[in-house]
Amino acid sequence: MKYYAKPLNKLINELARLPGIGERTAQRLALHILSLNDKEAFALSDAIREAKETMKYCSVCGNLTDTDPCAICADTSRDSSTICVVESPKDVLAMEKIREYRGYYHVLHGVISPMDQKGPEDINLKSLITRLQNPEVKELIIATNPTIEGEATAVYIARLIKPSGIKVSRIAHGIPVGGDLEYADEVTLLKAIEGRREL
Amino acid sequence: MKYYAKPLNKLINELARLPGIGERTAQRLALHILSLNDKEAFALSDAIREAKETMKYCSVCGNLTDTDPCAICADTSRDSSTICVVESPKDVLAMEKIREYRGYYHVLHGVISPMDQKGPEDINLKSLITRLQNPEVKELIIATNPTIEGEATAVYIARLIKPSGIKVSRIAHGIPVGGDLEYADEVTLLKAIEGRREL
Repeated sequence: MKYYAKPLNKLINELARLPGIGERTAQRLALHILSLNDKEAFALSDAIREAKETMKYCSVCGNLTDTDPCAICADTSRDSSTICVVESPKDVLAMEKIREYRGYYHVLHGVISPMDQKGPEDINLKSLITRLQNPEVKELIIATNPTIEGEATAVYIARLIKPSGIKVSRIAHGIPVGGDLEYADEVTLLKAIEGRREL
Repeated sequence: MKYYAKPLNKLINELARLPGIGERTAQRLALHILSLNDKEAFALSDAIREAKETMKYCSVCGNLTDTDPCAICADTSRDSSTICVVESPKDVLAMEKIREYRGYYHVLHGVISPMDQKGPEDINLKSLITRLQNPEVKELIIATNPTIEGEATAVYIARLIKPSGIKVSRIAHGIPVGGDLEYADEVTLLKAIEGRREL
């Protein structure tokens, strides 16, 4: 069915491919974009093209960057004794926002997931092993998500690295601050008890 | 605060300007776009530019179109005795979807709204008056939204046109099909009673 002119239909279809954007939202966004002036609309178009053309993965840590190595890897003032392993670039952002962690990162770009035919060789692990040859590295913090696959990946990496003598730690899982015991699920509560600390 | 590289930040900012897209969603969309292959990402960028460059308003009815006059205005098989007045191009789409209305349209691009300093001269009314000079037009169906401004605009247009002898009608407002009397608001219920029809 063709209710709209072709270029508008095409725009709606392209927008509807984005995650979480349905047909209706795509239509609303497309009409909004057409209601913008040329400069504003082209700014969005150009931002997509420019980001796609310039953003690459850092050859050291795998984070998204427009320089290689990325700004974090190139920052020699950071603590070279720790590497934090995360699943994706947005986890780096989340960690950076707390302004507490001063070490480096390593982005896996996924997790080991036999269900999706993703083994250890399908994630960015090889370059991590190479980075750990550096004698300055003393600790590896594994911050994959607390999903089944994230946990499995954490355990896999821990077993792989431990023989080398480098300390391997896992971020704590438990009741979120501001959360309520009553509403915590059983696994979280179990993790909270397991991870209890002496006061 | 600069956590992400500049091109990515720019893309997130541009996406966050879209209606209903917050900072978080913009970040998720931007990362998704970067995870696409070049062809897919550029297709979105190009679709925005192409739509913005080719889509114009029809000089006859004001609908969005890539040809002038638009496909509906150019379709001589339609019923030239009726013109349906709507607020925006997406209302034309909604009407076309029911596949029942065979007349032409007129898009106002807004409503009279003194609160927003929008008077009759700020909406696409002048060309409507010109179109009504055509003796073939027998009825004007006013399908502005049932908001205060939409109603006021409907009444204004009705008063303006009636002296010319053209029939002016307003779409019915009442309980939506599948709706429940119990949950209908008072104004809707009032409209439903006012608009009752003999069986």
